[in-house]
Amino acid sequence: MPEPIEDFYAVIPAGGIGSRLWPLSRADAPKFLHDLTGSGSSLLRDTWNRLEPLTGGDRIAVVTGRAHRAAVEKELPDIPDHNVFLESEPRDSTAAIGLAAAILVRREPDVIIGSFAADHVIRVPHLFEWAVRQAVAVAREGYICTIGIQPAEPSIGFGYIKKASELIVDGAPEAALVERFVEKPDLETAKEYFAERSYLWNAGMFISRADVLLGEIAEQDPHLYAGLMDLAEAWDDREKRGPVVDRVWPTLTKIAIDYAVAEPAAEKGRLAVIPGHFDWDDVGDFASLAKLNSHGRKNDLAILGENARILSDASSGIVVSQTQRVISLIGVKDIVVVDTEDALLVTTSEHAQRVKGVVDALKLTGRGDVL
Amino acid sequence: MPEPIEDFYAVIPAGGIGSRLWPLSRADAPKFLHDLTGSGSSLLRDTWNRLEPLTGGDRIAVVTGRAHRAAVEKELPDIPDHNVFLESEPRDSTAAIGLAAAILVRREPDVIIGSFAADHVIRVPHLFEWAVRQAVAVAREGYICTIGIQPAEPSIGFGYIKKASELIVDGAPEAALVERFVEKPDLETAKEYFAERSYLWNAGMFISRADVLLGEIAEQDPHLYAGLMDLAEAWDDREKRGPVVDRVWPTLTKIAIDYAVAEPAAEKGRLAVIPGHFDWDDVGDFASLAKLNSHGRKNDLAILGENARILSDASSGIVVSQTQRVISLIGVKDIVVVDTEDALLVTTSEHAQRVKGVVDALKLTGRGDVL
Repeated sequence: MPEPIEDFYAVIPAGGIGSRLWPLSRADAPKFLHDLTGSGSSLLRDTWNRLEPLTGGDRIAVVTGRAHRAAVEKELPDIPDHNVFLESEPRDSTAAIGLAAAILVRREPDVIIGSFAADHVIRVPHLFEWAVRQAVAVAREGYICTIGIQPAEPSIGFGYIKKASELIVDGAPEAALVERFVEKPDLETAKEYFAERSYLWNAGMFISRADVLLGEIAEQDPHLYAGLMDLAEAWDDREKRGPVVDRVWPTLTKIAIDYAVAEPAAEKGRLAVIPGHFDWDDVGDFASLAKLNSHGRKNDLAILGENARILSDASSGIVVSQTQRVISLIGVKDIVVVDTEDALLVTTSEHAQRVKGVVDALKLTGRGDVL
Repeated sequence: MPEPIEDFYAVIPAGGIGSRLWPLSRADAPKFLHDLTGSGSSLLRDTWNRLEPLTGGDRIAVVTGRAHRAAVEKELPDIPDHNVFLESEPRDSTAAIGLAAAILVRREPDVIIGSFAADHVIRVPHLFEWAVRQAVAVAREGYICTIGIQPAEPSIGFGYIKKASELIVDGAPEAALVERFVEKPDLETAKEYFAERSYLWNAGMFISRADVLLGEIAEQDPHLYAGLMDLAEAWDDREKRGPVVDRVWPTLTKIAIDYAVAEPAAEKGRLAVIPGHFDWDDVGDFASLAKLNSHGRKNDLAILGENARILSDASSGIVVSQTQRVISLIGVKDIVVVDTEDALLVTTSEHAQRVKGVVDALKLTGRGDVL
């Protein structure tokens, strides 16, 4: 077993519900608490297991909502109390990761932090480790470093990172500077990117010195930076923390770290990238969940649910069974059926992205009890 | 209000489960116990209500399985005890209707009986009454008389009755002899039938003197006839009935009345027909249930279920909701979703006829608990 990286701390923002996976994912059972791969453990636990060899179990922090504290601690029984950072309400990823950075840098001024989503799926852990070790080496040089996934196909579902010139860093033979970020492309463009090999999928992983990250936030949004500093100063003092959180947290700018930190840093030549050669998926909707669970076979109905009782002639799509009910499918193609105790979803892979719209409509029509 | 017909007795065979409507219809909740039209009452009750003006409430007999006795009596609280004829096991329609005929003819030698399925849907009751009154007039002349439905479209889902020459019977201006019965045709043939106007849908309604019907059974199947006689002789004697039923019932020939009585009678020129001008449907599968509940509009998702909570962009098909669950449909067409406590069916109108195959498969695979 390789040793953990001494000056490294992992941060897992565990915030998003995953509305595109409703009614499986929902407020009290967000995506990161589900086993979406049949691994037997939740995505959050899988994330922890992936990071632990790199950090040790006492150097992984989780940023999550107060409502999920108990569930997170159940999934991660070994997490030290002082590494669970509770948000009083969601303020997007810059606030979440910035809070962690601000707290950790006070505890350990030279700390390098890496943020990794709680609800992504990664296979081939040793390739992930290799990428992170390179990224930490790059971060040690003062860069913000992301890990971009070497595309497995011309996907239109992800944003892209365009690599620029190589970066010579000891221990990071694959390092390069980032030229720019690109939003989700159309299929034609995605095919060009795929052919060109210098475009990587943006998987939202950022590794940097905590002080460098905070410096970037300070440049872009001094108000947000000041708020994070106030929070961090009070954080490890039980008496002080509450009032400061109540006062400051609701005022923090709601902005994704891609916009607040990564893109501006890229423009200034301060963002590096390590290509990741591992299988990665953000499991953004039921179509990708179906693909993930069809084991590479094209004509295969994916089935998720330990006690699924299914009778089907469907050769594609996915059934998620959270009840004991017999589910029978006849003559349907690329179907998506999600069967939970209080809600049922029937759609197709093609329309999987529209599930979020249902969630919005349920809110509007007063049926939020099933969200 | 017109008077009931003095010498007339209605018989309702309430036997079939309606497997093509699984998981709505099932062993302990057969089709005839469901409200499939949103009328607020079961098909059985609707059938009773339709017949009562023709017979009075004390002259309607129901032939049903022992398991359904309580449910039938709940639906029909006014039915006299001696008019509930219980089958110890299903032996098809000739045994069921023949038993009723044999019992009733002993009580009332000149009785005319009419058999009407418990699970069909009929609209415009006064046209139904008019057809039955004509049929009774024909039956009084010694014919077996059926009511054939004037087709509303070239259906391939029903068998047909070919009318022959007119029959001059007082009180039955539309009577005709039957030339022959035809099995479900292909579409081309159905179109010809529809254009020709002399083909009627076989709705399985038979009206005749009880003794004439029994005579026909005696000619075709003396063994079955003898069994029915033995049963009828013992029936109204509480002590005798049990042992005779146990001995005789299991030996009765299993045969549909169409084959045992109607077709042979047609060949011998003893079968007459009255055209029915009312809306009729046997609700044979979910496609026809969808049609029945779409209120004539082509682009309309039919919804069955008092407490249905549905969010859908589907413009056709049907949702049957027997639970409190929110059902969300996105981007599916002609969909059939049947949501019950222990079983869920997802199919399309096109494949609705294949539901029976699922029922068979569930039996074979040991999941009969949901049938």
